[in-house]
Amino acid sequence: MRLKGGPTQDEVMAVSLFKLGIQDGDVMADVGCGTGKISIQASGICCHIYAIDRRAEAIDYAKREIENAGAENITLLHGDAVHALDEIGALDCAFIGGSGNIETVLDKLAEKVSGRIVVNAVLLDTVSRAVAKMKELGIFVEVVHLQVSRSYELVGDLMFKPIHPVFIIVGEVKQ
Amino acid sequence: MRLKGGPTQDEVMAVSLFKLGIQDGDVMADVGCGTGKISIQASGICCHIYAIDRRAEAIDYAKREIENAGAENITLLHGDAVHALDEIGALDCAFIGGSGNIETVLDKLAEKVSGRIVVNAVLLDTVSRAVAKMKELGIFVEVVHLQVSRSYELVGDLMFKPIHPVFIIVGEVKQ
Amino acid sequence: MRLKGGPTQDEVMAVSLFKLGIQDGDVMADVGCGTGKISIQASGICCHIYAIDRRAEAIDYAKREIENAGAENITLLHGDAVHALDEIGALDCAFIGGSGNIETVLDKLAEKVSGRIVVNAVLLDTVSRAVAKMKELGIFVEVVHLQVSRSYELVGDLMFKPIHPVFIIVGEVKQ
Amino acid sequence: MRLKGGPTQDEVMAVSLFKLGIQDGDVMADVGCGTGKISIQASGICCHIYAIDRRAEAIDYAKREIENAGAENITLLHGDAVHALDEIGALDCAFIGGSGNIETVLDKLAEKVSGRIVVNAVLLDTVSRAVAKMKELGIFVEVVHLQVSRSYELVGDLMFKPIHPVFIIVGEVKQ
Repeated sequence: MRLKGGPTQDEVMAVSLFKLGIQDGDVMADVGCGTGKISIQASGICCHIYAIDRRAEAIDYAKREIENAGAENITLLHGDAVHALDEIGALDCAFIGGSGNIETVLDKLAEKVSGRIVVNAVLLDTVSRAVAKMKELGIFVEVVHLQVSRSYELVGDLMFKPIHPVFIIVGEVKQ
Repeated sequence: MRLKGGPTQDEVMAVSLFKLGIQDGDVMADVGCGTGKISIQASGICCHIYAIDRRAEAIDYAKREIENAGAENITLLHGDAVHALDEIGALDCAFIGGSGNIETVLDKLAEKVSGRIVVNAVLLDTVSRAVAKMKELGIFVEVVHLQVSRSYELVGDLMFKPIHPVFIIVGEVKQ
Repeated sequence: MRLKGGPTQDEVMAVSLFKLGIQDGDVMADVGCGTGKISIQASGICCHIYAIDRRAEAIDYAKREIENAGAENITLLHGDAVHALDEIGALDCAFIGGSGNIETVLDKLAEKVSGRIVVNAVLLDTVSRAVAKMKELGIFVEVVHLQVSRSYELVGDLMFKPIHPVFIIVGEVKQ
Repeated sequence: MRLKGGPTQDEVMAVSLFKLGIQDGDVMADVGCGTGKISIQASGICCHIYAIDRRAEAIDYAKREIENAGAENITLLHGDAVHALDEIGALDCAFIGGSGNIETVLDKLAEKVSGRIVVNAVLLDTVSRAVAKMKELGIFVEVVHLQVSRSYELVGDLMFKPIHPVFIIVGEVKQ
């Protein structure tokens, strides 16, 4: 099975998790968790992760991946992000890899999170909306535009193949 | 038919021809002309263009494209670039889009050209070799790394799709 | 004197003029002409260019540059772009390098131009607004994100120095 | 005090450490440690880090930074990398942020390391040499070209400022 959008690319994940500044003991939300890749990577450092997706097929996919990885500190939540977030307590950070309504999710996260919120966006409109909402909430830090190319072999030499550029939008809630 | 490598992307062509600094009355060589795209674009400004390729299928392809474009100032030369260049006179500039032996071609062009030489390279080794040879010949100007992404529509919004990054190596022969 | 923003970088200019598709005989507007660099470059191909800027210092600067370049087919217009455009006739293409109110300028250009309109933007909000307005006018074609790095010498080797990334927004009016 | 080259940028560090795949219990070498930034970041995960630099001012600088960070599992080694590496035992991974002679350092690391070796390079020649040496040693994995731009505020809107592009060269020793 292949989920729409596919997993976050390694380099984008590395920068996103760095910007989140995850630490030992953190409780994190992964909104629009998709394949579960970000949650699994973060599970090595965080204390607990709530991985949320409203697509049943994403939850199924992530469930298998989490089992294969042997990660035991991830709770999968199937459903709308705002409702799911209502069910859980305080968070140290949150990652948004995909979301239907970025504004309401950011509103909710601004209440729940005490720390960094990082959004990955490839759609221009999502970038603008996430920035505008973060500015309104007084939590905007920066946008990072990441353009990665990876080498591959061609006739014994190296060529570079670009991956899709991603905007990484960073916010911080100081509570 | 599809030629290996495909035509130069529009944005890469625009920057390459700008770096060549082609002007009214120029005589230009297009080494490894492939589909003929660079020659056809340059033919609107240059006086005459020698388009060279050692692949018979490239010559056939370029021939049709040149006819379709109605360009009448392009001479197609089938064969090895160094031999082909031996047959023609002085040049005002030269573009190398592809070449089997970049060093011998640059040696030959350094004799023939009085002006700019621009190389497009995607292979890392070709970049190093073109730069080293241009430095040896005392004609090196700069390398430009061009990373272009183009928007496409996705669910009513815009996403960016990158094209392969290209190194544009610029030399200038002052004679 | 140094104008705010500085001149358009060569590679950005090359791609922007290529996307404009300027041809022999074209009448072009250059809105927010700044140093006049785009107008001067285009003047070698276009029939006539109206270079508009509301900053007196830009007009002064461009005037000197145009004289130095010996370009005789550029009319400098000092003032608001919409008013200036009201004074001139039909256009084949238009470039917007800077503008106070992108929406009203695009409204006006959509009336005047029969052909390509290209906007250079570095501000995220300007990109969104130009795209939204072009879509509303039914003239949107694409956005190109251009990331250029140029080599410079360091201890006998080459390093790459990036220039500011630019969004090139392309529209086309079919009349 | 400012060290030549300056500290590795956050995003480049995040991707480099991800490619290193550092894990709990790892012993790592940081060759050309400069300000000590990479060592300090890695010290939260690795068991022990040997930070090597032949510049006395780098060692002084890194010493202060390491003390400020309270990292207690970093051993600073002042001197030539190859000699310093001779003094230490087996390594799980190694990062090369700067080095006088990339070939001899890679030769030595290929003996000592059982795992990933990651080189950061901004000089074109260093990229070619690191790749060539890694291929000769049979440990080459990939090169990642990383182009990061960060937003900054301009008149209430966001503009993007690029940082210098970096080549991240990845090798893996399987012993």
